[in-house]
Amino acid sequence: MLDPRTTAETMRPDESEAGGLLDPADWGGLRDLGHRMVDDMLEWLRTVRERPLYEPVPESVRRSLSGPVPREPQAASAVYEDFRRDVLPYPHGNVHPRFWGWVVGTGTPLGMLADMLAAGINSNSGFGDHCAVHVERQVVAWLAEALGIDAGVSGLLVSGCSVANLTGLAIARNALTEGDVRRDGLAGQAPLVVYGSTETHSSNLRGLELLGIGRNGFRGIRVDADHRIDVEALRAAIRADREAGRRPLAVVGNAGTVNIGAFDDLGALADVCSDEGLWLHVDGAFGALAALSGRLRPLTAALERADSVAFDLHKWLHVPYDAGAILVRRAEAHRKAFELSGAYLSHLESGVATGPENFMQRGVQMSRGFRALKVWMTIKEHGIDKLGRAVEANVDQAAYLADRVEREPELELAAPVPLNIVNFRFVPQGAPRAAEELDRLNRRVLEALHASGVAAPSHTVLDGRFVLRTAISNHRSRFDDFDLLVDEVLRHGRSLAQAGSR
Amino acid sequence: MLDPRTTAETMRPDESEAGGLLDPADWGGLRDLGHRMVDDMLEWLRTVRERPLYEPVPESVRRSLSGPVPREPQAASAVYEDFRRDVLPYPHGNVHPRFWGWVVGTGTPLGMLADMLAAGINSNSGFGDHCAVHVERQVVAWLAEALGIDAGVSGLLVSGCSVANLTGLAIARNALTEGDVRRDGLAGQAPLVVYGSTETHSSNLRGLELLGIGRNGFRGIRVDADHRIDVEALRAAIRADREAGRRPLAVVGNAGTVNIGAFDDLGALADVCSDEGLWLHVDGAFGALAALSGRLRPLTAALERADSVAFDLHKWLHVPYDAGAILVRRAEAHRKAFELSGAYLSHLESGVATGPENFMQRGVQMSRGFRALKVWMTIKEHGIDKLGRAVEANVDQAAYLADRVEREPELELAAPVPLNIVNFRFVPQGAPRAAEELDRLNRRVLEALHASGVAAPSHTVLDGRFVLRTAISNHRSRFDDFDLLVDEVLRHGRSLAQAGSR
Repeated sequence: MLDPRTTAETMRPDESEAGGLLDPADWGGLRDLGHRMVDDMLEWLRTVRERPLYEPVPESVRRSLSGPVPREPQAASAVYEDFRRDVLPYPHGNVHPRFWGWVVGTGTPLGMLADMLAAGINSNSGFGDHCAVHVERQVVAWLAEALGIDAGVSGLLVSGCSVANLTGLAIARNALTEGDVRRDGLAGQAPLVVYGSTETHSSNLRGLELLGIGRNGFRGIRVDADHRIDVEALRAAIRADREAGRRPLAVVGNAGTVNIGAFDDLGALADVCSDEGLWLHVDGAFGALAALSGRLRPLTAALERADSVAFDLHKWLHVPYDAGAILVRRAEAHRKAFELSGAYLSHLESGVATGPENFMQRGVQMSRGFRALKVWMTIKEHGIDKLGRAVEANVDQAAYLADRVEREPELELAAPVPLNIVNFRFVPQGAPRAAEELDRLNRRVLEALHASGVAAPSHTVLDGRFVLRTAISNHRSRFDDFDLLVDEVLRHGRSLAQAGSR
Repeated sequence: MLDPRTTAETMRPDESEAGGLLDPADWGGLRDLGHRMVDDMLEWLRTVRERPLYEPVPESVRRSLSGPVPREPQAASAVYEDFRRDVLPYPHGNVHPRFWGWVVGTGTPLGMLADMLAAGINSNSGFGDHCAVHVERQVVAWLAEALGIDAGVSGLLVSGCSVANLTGLAIARNALTEGDVRRDGLAGQAPLVVYGSTETHSSNLRGLELLGIGRNGFRGIRVDADHRIDVEALRAAIRADREAGRRPLAVVGNAGTVNIGAFDDLGALADVCSDEGLWLHVDGAFGALAALSGRLRPLTAALERADSVAFDLHKWLHVPYDAGAILVRRAEAHRKAFELSGAYLSHLESGVATGPENFMQRGVQMSRGFRALKVWMTIKEHGIDKLGRAVEANVDQAAYLADRVEREPELELAAPVPLNIVNFRFVPQGAPRAAEELDRLNRRVLEALHASGVAAPSHTVLDGRFVLRTAISNHRSRFDDFDLLVDEVLRHGRSLAQAGSR
């Protein structure tokens, strides 16, 4: 075995420099560079509307981004030039006012600066009695208050709703499975079953796969025309599973389905769970934030009865990626799901390590960044009411777009619009087209939109039809952006339909 | 159900402003504030050595950080003043040159600025053909190259080694369990067993708990005097489990144990796994980075034979929190462990969404921030060789500290020092003390050190003895910082021993 120890005298280098080995030799130069970065990024954000939302990554950049690991140092300013040449011009597009693909957030300029502050402080928020832990505790309490959930709730910030859903389902599994599942695992147990509508997001299925329950342990329950879970069908499925010797565990309630933004009747689901002894986990990735608006809050009625609520902060709260949250009403179950045993505690705690909350014992991550700061600063900057108005504005824009779609004879609204998502497609006038031809046509319309860099809806399949899906969680969008979307869909649609029929 | 739609005319607000709803009204003012933040943070980092490493959070700040959710907006500059008053003065301490508690990183000034750039671009690196995905691909390839692992390896960045360990163990479980565990879960399966030395980090146990294997599915194998796994005992345990009808699944190899930084014989473990058809997952949280140094690389010999390797980037690569990586030699098993089924693919991919790597289908997170940028900029700024020298410097400092400890009659080295961790304790001269008294004395020495803000080792328990644990992964530490540590331990130890005997 290698022994790198030698005597002290031979290895004591010159320590006359002020900073650390990886600190800058020229702090003033880095300060100037930092100012340039702030200037460039703020100007880039201020003028985002003037640029196409997307530029393909050119071959030269692809090559540059596939070279070998650099061995020699490079001046910080040169690294920044590389960033300006190879990185900044080719963003995902989601900061642009006309990006409505999937469900994404736009971030804010102060959120950007907050992440710099967090990275500078660089505190590990896993445990301890220091600012990052206190700020996160406050943010968790604020989120609970803002969503109308009891302030005594437990919770923590996570990387996003995928991990929040995994965490909620893990707590449910550990709390309600017979025996000690943390100790003994699931081998030899009866199969567990988790219920949710057929519109439930795939991250819940991934969570069940990870937890050893398996995706066949998910029972997809049919929905009504408004994409809301059929509660009677749910009750029947639970009965059938019990009769078959399976073990019903939890129900995933949807607060904003991924396809159309529908809300399950959470009160009815809470009743079912209460009657049946099941855990109610609400996946509110974006929809939970509707509770920030007094006008929209009825959609989330009974959210406070959920055992756990998962949602993203990098979507409709507009903090930069990545950030999500989980709130857990059964605080004791939350604690028991992740706490480390006595022996490990003794390894990991000491004087300075005590503190108000041991977040490393509340979720999957042990070392954790200072994710809470950008949330804290965003909520302070705007106040929670204005953040609620930003949610409302997007919902109003969805209603506006749906209205425009319904007025255009060549456009077809493909689903109800309960929140912020508008699904529609282009259907040319004249002789009816085959279903396949309409799917192909709309796919080409979407590709043309993306290629033009003008607007980016995404797509989904509803009732077997390919449709454009416009999910609006963008604080930079204006009403006239949706006029432009409609105009461009019509223009591309007509042109492509004509070309196709020639 | 609420229907927020009204007609377009009634709800079209004034759209004369240039920015989005949450953009600043005064971009110039925010630019000036950004410059102040850069100045303040760089000055704060430059002068960190001049301050105590830790200040208790005063009662007034605790109160301020427990108020209700703000409803009204607040100027960005006022939010920043709140940050300067309530947050910045109370860091965890890990950016300080004499913080050696647990295993943490210090971050770098350019890493801090990189996180600002990443948050400004705000790209979702889950999928797509844009800069964040290309940069992450390059970073994964660089890390593999730097660690001497085949460039054809699959991998991705994660929040840290806890998730990296979970990911590696999930891939192992999904690849090697009989049947389709993603579909059917673990109910009805024979119990799975994962092996590792008794020194294995608790995050692996948490991973097994999450995966439904349970912590009783972990078989802790005894170690030798150098804290390395006993390979013959491992082989015997595998045989015994097979005979008992359990299903051996994987071995966790340690590259740098948490207590003393020991390396298992990874070549011998690879042989065992090859003979037995098991997955070799290496937990190299900090130790894997020893491979960056030519001198230390023999410690990680055979790392390239592991099926998966997990390590942190926010520890010994000094990027800001949080960042870790997983590299997977069996790329096909990695892909199969997380890929979404056809139906979901059709929901989630389209023109602009294609790209070189679908990272959302490689791990737990779906939406993912641009974590790769700070890694990319850090490796470019310093070059991988200098980052290796920073690792070497800490190892040299550990050797230096161990040497000083061995020369001091009142200090006792408590374990070998194979890497960067020095465990020692104060033992007063004179009549022998009871074991409990020595434990108490050393705990009080540690508390006094922490309270003084001069230095922060943490502690562990070795052979039943409470010892100070100095884990050095700090690029700001100098040799004379360890002289100060020794002096202070002696000073507090003598004073407390005397006070105790009075």
